[in-house]
Amino acid sequence: MGKLYVVSIGPGGLEYMTIKALDVIKKSDVIVGYTKYIELIGDLIKDKIVFSTGMHGEIERCKKALELSKDNTVSIISTGDAGIYGMAGLILELKKDEDVEIIPGVTASSSAASILGAPLMHDNCNISLSDLMTPYEIIKKRVEFAAKGDFVISLYNPRSKGRPNYLMECINIIKNYRKGDTPAAVVKNALRNEQKYKIFTLDTFDDFGVDMLSIVIIGNSLSFVKNGEFITPRGYNINRKG
Amino acid sequence: MGKLYVVSIGPGGLEYMTIKALDVIKKSDVIVGYTKYIELIGDLIKDKIVFSTGMHGEIERCKKALELSKDNTVSIISTGDAGIYGMAGLILELKKDEDVEIIPGVTASSSAASILGAPLMHDNCNISLSDLMTPYEIIKKRVEFAAKGDFVISLYNPRSKGRPNYLMECINIIKNYRKGDTPAAVVKNALRNEQKYKIFTLDTFDDFGVDMLSIVIIGNSLSFVKNGEFITPRGYNINRKG
Repeated sequence: MGKLYVVSIGPGGLEYMTIKALDVIKKSDVIVGYTKYIELIGDLIKDKIVFSTGMHGEIERCKKALELSKDNTVSIISTGDAGIYGMAGLILELKKDEDVEIIPGVTASSSAASILGAPLMHDNCNISLSDLMTPYEIIKKRVEFAAKGDFVISLYNPRSKGRPNYLMECINIIKNYRKGDTPAAVVKNALRNEQKYKIFTLDTFDDFGVDMLSIVIIGNSLSFVKNGEFITPRGYNINRKG
Repeated sequence: MGKLYVVSIGPGGLEYMTIKALDVIKKSDVIVGYTKYIELIGDLIKDKIVFSTGMHGEIERCKKALELSKDNTVSIISTGDAGIYGMAGLILELKKDEDVEIIPGVTASSSAASILGAPLMHDNCNISLSDLMTPYEIIKKRVEFAAKGDFVISLYNPRSKGRPNYLMECINIIKNYRKGDTPAAVVKNALRNEQKYKIFTLDTFDDFGVDMLSIVIIGNSLSFVKNGEFITPRGYNINRKG
C-alpha cells in the first residue's frame, strides 16, 4: 500500500522547507512536479524516479501522482504552500481511495513579506490576478472589496504576457480607497537566487519587471516605511506613526 | 557584533519548523519568547539562556531581545509566521541600529487548512477577532467586506473569555452573503498535541470549544465537502461540483 504526500517546499531552496517536507521527500520513491520546481530541489532527489511536466500539465501530474501512489511512496511538490493556489485542491478533487497527506509550507506572501519588513502584521488577503480560471470581472471586484475593507493585499501571479495591464488597473482600483503614499512593494524570486525587491508607494508604483514569480504587497491605511522597511502596525488604537 | 533573528516556528512541533529556523535557533546563545511557546521547543534549547515572559509581555520581550542582540546571537520566537500577527512588526518598530533578520514560517491558517483538506485554494484572507488593538467596529466591517468579496475567510484569535460572542456575530454577518450550506470549520491545536477539528456549515456552526489557539475557516461560494474533506476549487470557470 502506497501513500501520496502533497509537499509544500516553500520559496524554493532547501533552507525554507520544513523538516517534515524534507523527510517525506527523502523517503519517497517517486517525485512528481512541474519541471522548474523539480530543478529547485534537484540535489535532494538524484536517486528518485521523477515525473515532471510543463506548466499547464497540472491535471496530468495529479492523476499520475495518484495512480503511482497505489504502490509507491510518492511526493507531489508545490512551491510555497501547496494549500494556497497549489496542488492540494486538485489532488483532493481527483482522489478516490488513495491515502493522501498534505504537508503545509511557507506561502509566497510570507516569504516576500520577510524580505520587505513586516507588511502583513494585520488583517491581510491573498488575491491571484490570473484569469485562467477566474473571470477578470470577479478579480477586480475582489480587489475593490479588499481595498474597501482596508486589508493589506498580496497579489499572486501579478502579471503575465497575456495580461500586461491587470496589475496597474488593480493598483488604480486600490488608489480610489487609499492614500497615494501607501507603501506598495514588489518582490521577485523571494528567498531564491536572483532575489530583487523594491518598495514604492501607490503613486510611484511602476511594474519593476513584475512577472509570474513576483509578489506585490500593498499596505493598509496605517502601513509605513521606516529605514527602508515596510511595516504595518498591529493595531488601530495606538498611533505609532507620530 | 550580535544579531537578532525573528524566528517563525510554525504550528509548534519541530517537524513543521523550517530547516533555516532550526539552524538559527541552534546557533543562538539566547532565546526569547512567550513562556508557552518556549515550552514547545524545550528540547532544542536546553543549553541556551532563555528569557521568557507571559502573554502580554510583548513589548518587554522585544526590547530585551533587541538589547541582548547587541552582543549576542539571539532568536525571538513566534508560532506560525512571525510576520502575520507575530513579533516581526514590533521588533522592526522598536529597532534602532540592531542587525535583524526575519525567518518566515508556516502560518496558522496554512496548518489548519492542511488538516481540513484544501479550503484556501482560491483568494483568501486572514482576520483577527482580537479587539485588544483594533476596535470591534472595524473588525466587523472587515468581515463584511471579506464576505461580500467572496474570500475564503480564516479567523485568527476567534474567541477569548472577554469576548465570547464575537465569533457567532461574525458568522452571522457572513451568513448575510453566503448560503447556509457553505462549509465552516474549526481546528484546535493544528499539528500539535491534542489536535481536534470539525467541519460544520454556516447553518450548523457551533463554537466547538473554540479558543485563542483555534482557527476558524469559512469557505467561499464554491467551497464544498467531499469524503469529509473541505475543498475550495481553484477556479470559477469550471463547475466541478456537478
